[in-house]
Amino acid sequence: MNPTLKVTEVLEVALYVTDLAAAENFYTKILGLTLYSKVVGRHVFLRCGTRMVLLFNAKTTIDADSGPLGVPQHGMVGEGHIAFAVQDHEIDQWKEYLIAQGINIEKEIHWERGRSIYFRDPSENSVEITSPAIWGIKEDIFF
Amino acid sequence: MNPTLKVTEVLEVALYVTDLAAAENFYTKILGLTLYSKVVGRHVFLRCGTRMVLLFNAKTTIDADSGPLGVPQHGMVGEGHIAFAVQDHEIDQWKEYLIAQGINIEKEIHWERGRSIYFRDPSENSVEITSPAIWGIKEDIFF
Repeated sequence: MNPTLKVTEVLEVALYVTDLAAAENFYTKILGLTLYSKVVGRHVFLRCGTRMVLLFNAKTTIDADSGPLGVPQHGMVGEGHIAFAVQDHEIDQWKEYLIAQGINIEKEIHWERGRSIYFRDPSENSVEITSPAIWGIKEDIFF
Repeated sequence: MNPTLKVTEVLEVALYVTDLAAAENFYTKILGLTLYSKVVGRHVFLRCGTRMVLLFNAKTTIDADSGPLGVPQHGMVGEGHIAFAVQDHEIDQWKEYLIAQGINIEKEIHWERGRSIYFRDPSENSVEITSPAIWGIKEDIFF
């Protein structure tokens, strides 16, 4: 079956965190995302280029009665994953910068078409910085 | 503190699912994402425009020894969230289409600058289709 409609654009990415303030600090002050809005204790909404990264306190969002916006309930526990795209030639600079911020580079993987560095946010989510080239996506679409 | 480097592009979004085959069917056959690669029982990687949507079986990815790629372990349980961007004028068409596919529209919310429809994937993740306008992002950046 070929779908008659297709989604072609991811708009919002959700991450679940145990400490919203620490997560806000990490994603805005270390990675440079822009604060869009927040509800203390529930969520921090961040802008990343033309996308939104939504940080949620799962303890709150799992509770159906907690949603100030009336959105359907959701919430996860554990360690999630997100990757951000940079240009391949910037990755060494990112490594140096993150280490200077006290961030441990947990792993570096060299793929066929590029490489990835992995580190943890304050809630232990696995964060990756890599080039879109690793997926066969041309960097000049992004940068 | 102003970070000296900034990420501006989300590249990979992770969702955790309980049934990978059902999730693959849902995201490719209903929503129209493109299969990129998969490891049966572990993950299904999908392309969505210039981004990747990564579906993981958390039971497998939580196990550090399971990663065929050697990536750091991660994994979440519960109900996650993702939103896809469409043009606001397409949302009625999406509603009709999803209902015709047997998908229940759990909620529709009218915001100040657009609206969202919410439904569930087969693992109960909360999926939203909306216009980037709800975040003050111009549709013509995307479409």
